[in-house]
Amino acid sequence: MAERRATNITWHHGEVSADDRARLLGHGAACVWMTGLSGSGKSTLARRVERRLIERGALAYVLDGDNIRHGLNADLGFGPADRTENIRRIGEVARLFVDAGAIVITAFISPYREDRARVRAMLAERFVEVHVATPLAVCEARDPKGLYARARSGEIAELTGVSAPYEPPEAPELRVDTSERELDACAERVLAHLEERGVLPRPSSGG
Amino acid sequence: MAERRATNITWHHGEVSADDRARLLGHGAACVWMTGLSGSGKSTLARRVERRLIERGALAYVLDGDNIRHGLNADLGFGPADRTENIRRIGEVARLFVDAGAIVITAFISPYREDRARVRAMLAERFVEVHVATPLAVCEARDPKGLYARARSGEIAELTGVSAPYEPPEAPELRVDTSERELDACAERVLAHLEERGVLPRPSSGG
Repeated sequence: MAERRATNITWHHGEVSADDRARLLGHGAACVWMTGLSGSGKSTLARRVERRLIERGALAYVLDGDNIRHGLNADLGFGPADRTENIRRIGEVARLFVDAGAIVITAFISPYREDRARVRAMLAERFVEVHVATPLAVCEARDPKGLYARARSGEIAELTGVSAPYEPPEAPELRVDTSERELDACAERVLAHLEERGVLPRPSSGG
Repeated sequence: MAERRATNITWHHGEVSADDRARLLGHGAACVWMTGLSGSGKSTLARRVERRLIERGALAYVLDGDNIRHGLNADLGFGPADRTENIRRIGEVARLFVDAGAIVITAFISPYREDRARVRAMLAERFVEVHVATPLAVCEARDPKGLYARARSGEIAELTGVSAPYEPPEAPELRVDTSERELDACAERVLAHLEERGVLPRPSSGG
C-alpha cells in the first residue's frame, strides 16, 4: 500500500516539510544575499557570519566565487549575459539550500538590480539582501585581487564600479560598510537581523 | 576538466571545517547517487530514504527532476550534450551539499557511465552509487510518466532503455530492485550501507 502511494507525484513533495526541517535544525531557513563591489568585504563577512552561525548551532553555508566560479559556473565568463546566468544559477542553488532548511549566505558582486530582483521574487521572505556598501575608494585601496590596478592600467576592460555598472540596492534589508565597523560588528548586525526576522533563535540567557 | 581539478585545491577558505559540520549535525556527509531507468523507483526511493534520515535526525536532501529540471537546469534539454551538462551541474550542486555537511540524495537516470565517473572522481569516498536496477519490463509496465507508451508509439524519439542507451554501473556501492523488495526494505538497505560507511551513526539501543 505504501508502494502504491509512492508512485503518486504529490507524495514526493509531502515527504518532509519545511517545519520538519526547522524542528530538526532548530532554526529557520534563509538566503543572506551579500552584494557589493570587489574588495567590499562580502566574502570575508560571509565566512565570518557562517562561522558565528555554526558556533550557535545553525547550519550555515557560504556560496562564493571560490566554490561556484571554479565549479558549477566554471563555464561562464564575465560578460553581461554570463553574469546574469551566473546569478540565476546561484539563486537556484540558494533556493535548494533554503528548501533543505539551511541558512545560505551568498557573496557575489551581483551588480544588476534586475538579476537580484528575480532571486528575491523566487525566495520571497526568505531573501535577505545585504548591501556591503564599502566605498569604492576603500575597495580600490584594498584591491585584494589586484583587479582595480589592472582595470586602471587598461589590462581589464570591464570592472564593476570602474568601467562596468554597479546598481546598488534601493531597499536592502541591511546595509553594512566594512570600513566603518569591525568585521565582528558587521557580522553581529547580520545575526541580529536574522534574530529579528525569527530565522535564528535568540541565545538563551543561561548560555 | 584539468583546469577545474587544479583550481579545486584552493576552493575552500576553511573557516568552518568538515569536522565542525559533522559535530554540528551528528553525522557525516555523503552523496547517495541513484541511477536507473525511468520508472525504476529512484525518486520514490530517494524521498523515502530522505524521510527516514530526517526521522533519525540527519540532514538529508533530495535533488531530483522536480527541483532541478524546473529550476537550475530549466535551460537544458534531453540530447546527449545537455544530459551531460545536466549531470555535471547536479554533481557540482551535490558537492556543495556534501561540503555543507549534508547527506544529499540524487535521483536522475544519469545514463552515461562517464558522466557518473566524473562526479565520483570529484566526490571520492563521499560518493555512494546506488543502481536502482528494476528490470525494464517492470519500469515499462509502471510507466508513471507515460514515457514508454509514447516512445513505443514513436512520439518520443529518444528514451533511455528503449531508443537511447543506459550504461549500468559496473561496480555500484549498492544495487536495489524495487520490484523485488518493499520500498521500506530498499530504503533500509541504503541506510544500513550509510551506517557501514560510518556516515550515519547506528541507532542507540536505548531507542
